[in-house]
Amino acid sequence: MGGSLARRLLSDHRVIAEKSGIELELVKVAVRDLSKPRPFPSELLTDRPEDVVRDPDVALVVEVMGGLEPAGELVLTALNERKPVVTANKELLAARGPELFTRAAEKGVSLLFEAAVGGGIPLIRPLSESLAGEPITRVLGIVNGTTNFILTAMAEEGRPYREALAEAQRLGYAEADPSADVGGGDAAAKAAILAGLAFGVWVGGDRVYREGIESVDVADLAFARRLGYALKLLAVAERTPHGPAVRVHPAMIPIEHPLAGVRGANNAVFVEGPGVGELLFMGPGAGGEPTATAVLGDLIDAAREYLAGAQVAPRIRFGDGGVADFARVETKWYLRLEVVDAPGVLAQIAAVFGEHRVSLMSVWQEGRGETATLLLVTHDAPEEHHRRAVEALRSLEVVKQVAATYRVVAPEP
Amino acid sequence: MGGSLARRLLSDHRVIAEKSGIELELVKVAVRDLSKPRPFPSELLTDRPEDVVRDPDVALVVEVMGGLEPAGELVLTALNERKPVVTANKELLAARGPELFTRAAEKGVSLLFEAAVGGGIPLIRPLSESLAGEPITRVLGIVNGTTNFILTAMAEEGRPYREALAEAQRLGYAEADPSADVGGGDAAAKAAILAGLAFGVWVGGDRVYREGIESVDVADLAFARRLGYALKLLAVAERTPHGPAVRVHPAMIPIEHPLAGVRGANNAVFVEGPGVGELLFMGPGAGGEPTATAVLGDLIDAAREYLAGAQVAPRIRFGDGGVADFARVETKWYLRLEVVDAPGVLAQIAAVFGEHRVSLMSVWQEGRGETATLLLVTHDAPEEHHRRAVEALRSLEVVKQVAATYRVVAPEP
Repeated sequence: MGGSLARRLLSDHRVIAEKSGIELELVKVAVRDLSKPRPFPSELLTDRPEDVVRDPDVALVVEVMGGLEPAGELVLTALNERKPVVTANKELLAARGPELFTRAAEKGVSLLFEAAVGGGIPLIRPLSESLAGEPITRVLGIVNGTTNFILTAMAEEGRPYREALAEAQRLGYAEADPSADVGGGDAAAKAAILAGLAFGVWVGGDRVYREGIESVDVADLAFARRLGYALKLLAVAERTPHGPAVRVHPAMIPIEHPLAGVRGANNAVFVEGPGVGELLFMGPGAGGEPTATAVLGDLIDAAREYLAGAQVAPRIRFGDGGVADFARVETKWYLRLEVVDAPGVLAQIAAVFGEHRVSLMSVWQEGRGETATLLLVTHDAPEEHHRRAVEALRSLEVVKQVAATYRVVAPEP
Repeated sequence: MGGSLARRLLSDHRVIAEKSGIELELVKVAVRDLSKPRPFPSELLTDRPEDVVRDPDVALVVEVMGGLEPAGELVLTALNERKPVVTANKELLAARGPELFTRAAEKGVSLLFEAAVGGGIPLIRPLSESLAGEPITRVLGIVNGTTNFILTAMAEEGRPYREALAEAQRLGYAEADPSADVGGGDAAAKAAILAGLAFGVWVGGDRVYREGIESVDVADLAFARRLGYALKLLAVAERTPHGPAVRVHPAMIPIEHPLAGVRGANNAVFVEGPGVGELLFMGPGAGGEPTATAVLGDLIDAAREYLAGAQVAPRIRFGDGGVADFARVETKWYLRLEVVDAPGVLAQIAAVFGEHRVSLMSVWQEGRGETATLLLVTHDAPEEHHRRAVEALRSLEVVKQVAATYRVVAPEP
């Protein structure tokens, strides 16, 4: 990504200047390994990133190194030097957003981060500027391309998780250590940022409820299709009566919903509000070139700010409001049970849901001799009711196994 | 739309202030008819719009009256008074954009227009800011909800144009005089604005090639489906070897393309570039509430600018570059011919296309006794070749009628 950006700053210099009226000059590039061959002049390189942020010739700083440190200290140093900073570092923002934005405001410079969520898809400006007057009720989307690639391969080719992950790694869609993607951490950081912009409440990445896709069974993708659902790793930020709730987990979504059709490494985000209805933003959610486009847009704004001597980006505001206790958030669940195939079994199971005040929306049973597979989809009920119902199901003798549970996310009625 | 905005400024005042940090106070509202009952205090009202733009208590001006005059003079007066202006007036911008943006720049204030294209869908900031560094190659979309509503009703219910238009009027989706919508003028003004932002070349609304939907025959929607196409009124702005080309016309689009699935009064716009790939923006393209959301976002930016004493919106840049001569732009055509059903007819017709250097992509024939219906889809060829081929077809004795011609727009390969 840093390579794509440097190449475009050097080779598209004229195109950018003609279109934007801004001349951007690449002055210095910090790299980890000076000896690695790169497609740009070696005199620009240094392996001491402090030299970049402190250089008086450097007016604008781009941070695309990722990770919490030393990125965090470098960004703070640049802001302290009153240099606008452009970052793609969702992890850093999710962890230390309020501190960094406060510092930027104190210094009167912008901290821009269009590339941090959705790769090349413009999401940050639409949410923080175009929709600044909208009381957004929900942001819902696919914000991690790696997991969407894996789930697409599993659904379309019937491959098990391990195999689909290996293919994603072979094709460069997943890293050697895929845990940040497949564990939902990357999506959780992005969800925290989107929620912050949508609701004005900064949610730390660690306050996002999170489940990854590591234990997704390919069998459930086939069952999902029979019930009219696709399985996607969704990021959901919504206003609830208990406050904003932010979560990332695999979810069943109706097959006719546009998110169900998002394939491969694409990202797509719905933004919903009473005034604006339902907006969809879709495009390549990762990759060096799209991300470089987002960073370039920010750099041009940062340069306008530098030239105007006044902050052009909106101040990011965040209240310290609490986040809803996820146990109280209402969700629908899909459950796959392996049960004894005998009369009265369904009645026992239905009774358990009734006791826990969870009502069933649909039931589908397939007998196979001694045992049967039972697929259930519930209506909305608090998470804790669902969990207690599952506990109780596990203790039933007729239930051999609670083989899978997923949440079901449906469009607003 | 003015009513939705006023209501939200009055009733959502606290919500907006909490989310954005900006307190907006509605000071004065110019209306045409003072006697009409309105849901807000009558002491705010005047029927002299000059009083609004000249009032020293008015810091920010919103123009949602539409039309060229007096809107144009009022906007200029407000800019001259160094008041940032928010407008939803696509017609005015398409006609006088360079003059108005130049005046705004001279006065050091912003002229904001997120609501002018795509209703509540954020398009202006993404194009002018987030994608400022991207050499955009094509903008392609459905930007008029009225015509999309009519075409959807024709396609799904098999209604003829007149009937679908009457229903749209009854439901409030079309005005009593629908000509600006169904004639493509509204879409052309929006296409001109999108092209200006995408390519940095301001294209007057009058330089947009334009065809409306008034003569769309419902028969072609059924034929289109057989060939795997949907018919939509598309706005297309693209870079060509001859310069930017901007056009609005009904077009066949592959049924599997996301634009083919855009129903009713929704809008959807694709933005394509080498770095960013393919981005999609979709949502309600019109209506008081979504448009008020877009105006509110602009108002909050305008207020930030007023408070900062410095321009926060990017200067809109536009070169005076020419626009491609549409006769030279390459397009694909769909043609429906009524022909004599006899041996050798297809050979004659194919020969005509060959003579005019138009090659055929697909041919579908249905005989009905003496005459046959012939559906043809061509490969890309310059518009003028297509037109000459059609002239020549008309002079063939075996061609009873060139019953319909539409352009075919396909995704980039």
